[in-house]
Formats: sequence, structure tokens, C-alpha cells
Amino acid sequence: MAEKSYEEEHPTRAFGWAARDQSGVLSPFKFSRRSTGEKDVRFKVLYCGICHSDLHMAKNEWGTSMYPLVPGHEIVGEVTEVGSKVEKFKVGDKVGVGCMVGSCHSCDSCNSDLENYCPKMILTYSTKYHDGTTTYGGYSDSMVTDEHFVVRIPDNLPLDAAAPLLCAGITVYSPLRFFNLDKPGMHVGVVGLGGLGHVAVKFAKAMGVKVTVISTSPKKKQEALEHLGADSFLVSRDQDEMQAAMGTMDGVIDTVSAMHPILPLISLLKTQGKLVLVGAPEKPLELPVFPLIMGRKIVGGSCIGGMKETQEMIDFAAKNNITADIEVISMDYVNTAMERLLKTDVRYRFVIDIGNTMKI
Amino acid sequence: MAEKSYEEEHPTRAFGWAARDQSGVLSPFKFSRRSTGEKDVRFKVLYCGICHSDLHMAKNEWGTSMYPLVPGHEIVGEVTEVGSKVEKFKVGDKVGVGCMVGSCHSCDSCNSDLENYCPKMILTYSTKYHDGTTTYGGYSDSMVTDEHFVVRIPDNLPLDAAAPLLCAGITVYSPLRFFNLDKPGMHVGVVGLGGLGHVAVKFAKAMGVKVTVISTSPKKKQEALEHLGADSFLVSRDQDEMQAAMGTMDGVIDTVSAMHPILPLISLLKTQGKLVLVGAPEKPLELPVFPLIMGRKIVGGSCIGGMKETQEMIDFAAKNNITADIEVISMDYVNTAMERLLKTDVRYRFVIDIGNTMKI
Repeated sequence: MAEKSYEEEHPTRAFGWAARDQSGVLSPFKFSRRSTGEKDVRFKVLYCGICHSDLHMAKNEWGTSMYPLVPGHEIVGEVTEVGSKVEKFKVGDKVGVGCMVGSCHSCDSCNSDLENYCPKMILTYSTKYHDGTTTYGGYSDSMVTDEHFVVRIPDNLPLDAAAPLLCAGITVYSPLRFFNLDKPGMHVGVVGLGGLGHVAVKFAKAMGVKVTVISTSPKKKQEALEHLGADSFLVSRDQDEMQAAMGTMDGVIDTVSAMHPILPLISLLKTQGKLVLVGAPEKPLELPVFPLIMGRKIVGGSCIGGMKETQEMIDFAAKNNITADIEVISMDYVNTAMERLLKTDVRYRFVIDIGNTMKI
Repeated sequence: MAEKSYEEEHPTRAFGWAARDQSGVLSPFKFSRRSTGEKDVRFKVLYCGICHSDLHMAKNEWGTSMYPLVPGHEIVGEVTEVGSKVEKFKVGDKVGVGCMVGSCHSCDSCNSDLENYCPKMILTYSTKYHDGTTTYGGYSDSMVTDEHFVVRIPDNLPLDAAAPLLCAGITVYSPLRFFNLDKPGMHVGVVGLGGLGHVAVKFAKAMGVKVTVISTSPKKKQEALEHLGADSFLVSRDQDEMQAAMGTMDGVIDTVSAMHPILPLISLLKTQGKLVLVGAPEKPLELPVFPLIMGRKIVGGSCIGGMKETQEMIDFAAKNNITADIEVISMDYVNTAMERLLKTDVRYRFVIDIGNTMKI
């Protein structure tokens, strides 16, 4: 029997934009979605953020991509159908889906509301789902997702600017909470003022934390202080500035995924301070051991957050009017946006207006 | 005015063995100790352990050595005099001094019983004391030490085998406690079966923890399991063994100070597991970031312990009959012992019988 076409694999037609090969160029793609299962939520996608990992995945830079690949894991939309056993959502609700759509529900991580660390966690796109079919992301007209992996978007959050919270937001919110860097009066550094960093500043400020932005780019100072509300700014290449700030921070959230030295960041930490890496350079970083030992400091990593915490993050954002700073684009601008993203020419996140601009 | 000789610098004559230059060779040395101040405890040194850092310092391998240099920071002895305001000790008490003899008593670290992380912490030897004179360690006949930095050695602990607890012991005890690796049923790896590692096994076992020793040397297996009571043993170069143990440990205490890969150790950790480095390689280690992020793992450092915790450690050791495995040597064997230490030819700590063998 011939393999089914992408359009016929599942019962419901779907439409999106997909990368076909390592060029990473996206183009219209007809495929299909499964029927709404009893625990599934079907929703019309309205907006989808462009995460830097979409670019890596479109080009198979991590070696795990399956083509055709429909990116997108910062997805918001409106519920159009719910399965018979869905408890949390009804038609018309505003909802979101982030980086994952499935997990085993039985391991230690799953049992601790940490589905994000489940060894069988299923990514929102380019991963095999429970039924053996490939997952497709939010650069598409509709999603069908197990309600466990769907969050509610509170009414007061604008949907477009809320979309990036589903990945960028939880990626920085979770380590602030887990590593106890969320106490009023603490001092936290945020390295890199991009999609993740600018949201980290907003969350940390809302938690009552004193925030210092650390960037290679002096020209981001005004923006960091005046627009984002950071308390201070350090140019990471300015040794005098860095020296003066040594030993002053309880923690540093490092969002940079390019190779970079971490000794200067470890030096910024107080005794028992914590450097948390959320950007993943491809090659190992240099870890100086003496400075860790002499101050009982730690270097840790953190990867998005569990579903319970993701809902908590969205609710916290709604309560504190936190959204991402975005540039809304039309679907057919996506390849240009990807090129601009590569040059970090965006302040700070592209969001695709799927609902109004994606046409078959 | 000519500078005073080492013998005349302070009012009380003292005698020890000192390194004179970067050869690290030790030889008899006449010097002096201060009078017993009102908060000071004077004691006759009975035993002193040889820590690997004594070797580094004798040879100025860390660039901070001041010659003549009297090493030794695993010191035990019997009190011979106490100052008028000393509250905790009396003549005849068995006492110990570890790696530090002073701190500022006013910083955040000092106020948290973490004198070991005080920026002004004064090391037991080759550091300037409050009065501007150089500190001399325990390869000597007597010590005069602020009582705050003196611990009581419980009666049931043999003094010779207790000496190494003052540095090796607290170095591994403190991270087991601080990083919450001390809960019964947990699984902790200990990397390197030397002076630190063998005591780590004993402490962790006494805490009820399952212990796996990780070593490059298969011939240490029997010793680890049968003599030290470890639950299992991994040869770090055996990829099959390491692979089979992946994701099984809550924490790993890494005592190795030579350059070594830490990715295999990070891989042994469960989600949210902790790799704690207590040995300090001179050059940076390679830190793979992805494995940290994907499991919210941390790499941390730890340096000895505060005085309160050091007393707690000694009391815990006494209660659980924990001492170091030692080879007692005479003072004039010290240079040979240093050479053997360099070849890790000791099981597991040399202790100098100062009381009986050091003669002017």
C-alpha cells in the first residue's frame, strides 16, 4: 500500500508553511490534522511567534529535523472544538500552546509537573506523536492538542504580544522561580537583550528584583533602562564597568546561545550566586573551576517549564501586564523575517498574524 | 631598624618544618608564635595531616606562597593555655584547626556562619594575619589560634585519624549537606578515591545515601566496596558501565583536581541532579551546555565549610565512628611522603606524628 499523502494522513485538512530542506526556506504546505480526540482541544491559530529555534530547526542545524517541517511553538488561538472528556476548555476560549504537546505522564518528572523534563516529551513540531505521525507547529491554520498541553490566555492579554510568552516567557520565568531569584530586593543580571532577555527583564522587575542588563551592545542601554525598566546596564566588554559590578548579583540569567566567556558572569555573582544558562551554544563553554569553588557558586541550565508553571507564568504576566515587544508580520513575510532574525534585526520578537494573513 | 628574625618576630619560640623555595623541599625551621591573646587558644600540636594543597603551596604552584612556608592545615593537639576571654576551651582539651584561622566577622558570609567564604578569610599558613605577620601551619610544635577557629575533638575519635577531617572531611561533608545530597535513599557518586573521596564515601554512607565510587582505576573496586562500604563502583573509562548508570544519580561529588571531562559525570545525573566540584583543575574544564539545560542540572563548587559546620562535621564523625584511613609518618619522612603523594602512593592520607617525632 502506498504511503498516504500529507493531506490524507489524517481526516482533517490543514494548511501551513513548511521548510522542505536544509535551505530552511518556508513555503505553503497542505497537510492534515487528526480528528479531535476525547481529550483534545482544536483551535484556530491566530498568532504564532518566531523563536530562534524555529530557524535552527528549519535548517536542520541540530540534526533532528524531519521535512516537511512546519515550525512554530509560540501559538495562540481560539478554540473551535473540544473532545468529550475535555474539562478545562470550551469553544471560544483563547488558548495557547508552547514547545511541547505530549509526555509520558508516568515518570518522576511528569509526576512532579515537570513534563518539560520527561524523557519522552513530545515537541510541538518535527517529533513523532503517540500515534506515530509527525507533529506540525503553529505556522498553520489550526492545532489539535491534548488539553494537558494547552494553557488559557487571560482576557486582558493581547493575543499577538502574548504568543512569545509560551516559549520565550516560560524559558526565563521558570529559572527565576526555581533558582530562587524571584525575591524582592535581590539583584539579577540578564545577559543578552533579545527575545528571551527583554521578557526576563520584565518578569524580574515584576517580581521586585533589581535588574542589570548585560550586553555587548552599548546602544541597547537607553532601551534597557528607559523602555524596559532595567535598573542598570553593563557593557560586557567594558572591563572597568564589569569590575565595578563584581560580586553584586544573586543570579544571572544568560540568554546568549553564541559562544561566550562565562568567567566574567561568574565574577558578577555574590557568594552562592547562580548563573543560569538558557541559551545553548553548540560547543562546550570554558568553565573556570576555582571561582566556582571559592564562592560556592553554581552554573545551571533550565529548559522552558512544566504545564502547571506555564499557566502560572501566563497568569502572572496577565496580572502584571507583561507581554513581549513584538513586530507583527504577515505570513508571506516569514522568510524575510527569518533573514532579519539571523542578524538580530528585530525588537524583540516577530509574531506572524496567522489569522488574518495566511491564505491557501 | 633591621627586620626582626623569624625567631624574634613574636615572643614565643616555635619550631617546625618549612619550605624555603619553589623546590618545595621542607627542612627544620626556627620561628616564633604570638603570645596567647585574650581570645586565643594555644595548643601543643600532636598530629598534622598532609593535604595535597600543602604540596602545591610548598612549591608555589598557585603563585601565592610566602617563604619560609610552614604547611599544614589538618592540625590536632592538646590545649596548653587559653586567653582570659576564651569560653569554649580549657587546658587539656583535645582540639583541631583546619584551613582558616581568621575572617572579618562582619560580612554577609561571616554573619551566616560561612567564614570560609569571607573575602578576608585568613588561611592557616602563608597568609597575612590581622597583625600583619605571616601565618604558619601545623607542621610545627605549637599553634596559637583565635578560639572561633578552633574545634573540639570528641573523646572517642583517635587524634591521628581525625586530623584529616579538618580539611578533607569538611570539604566533602559541606557540599553533601548544602546541596541536599544527604537524604536517606538518595544516590550519590564520588569521583576519585583519594584523601577526599574515601572520606566522602564514609560520610555519605553514614547519611544513609547509596554511594557509587567512580574511578579511573579498576583496581580500587574491591577496596571501595569491601573496605569503604560503597554500594557500587564504576570505571570511568568503561563506556558500557557508564552508559548503564546514566541518569541514576541525585548528585556527584567530584574530588579530582586533574583535568578531566565532566560530560560523563553530568550524564550520570538524574533530572535536576547536581555535580559538585571540590577539586580545582588549574585550567578551565569543558562545560557542555545542552545536557545542563535539558535536565535542569547544575555544576557547583564548594570550599571547606564554616566553623559551625566544621564542628558539626566532627561531631557527626564521632557519632558515626568516621575517621580517615591514614599512614602515620615521622616528621623527617615528610619529603619522601610528598614525593609519594605526587604519585598518589598513599592509602589515603599521610598524617605526621608531630608530638612524638618532631625534634629540634
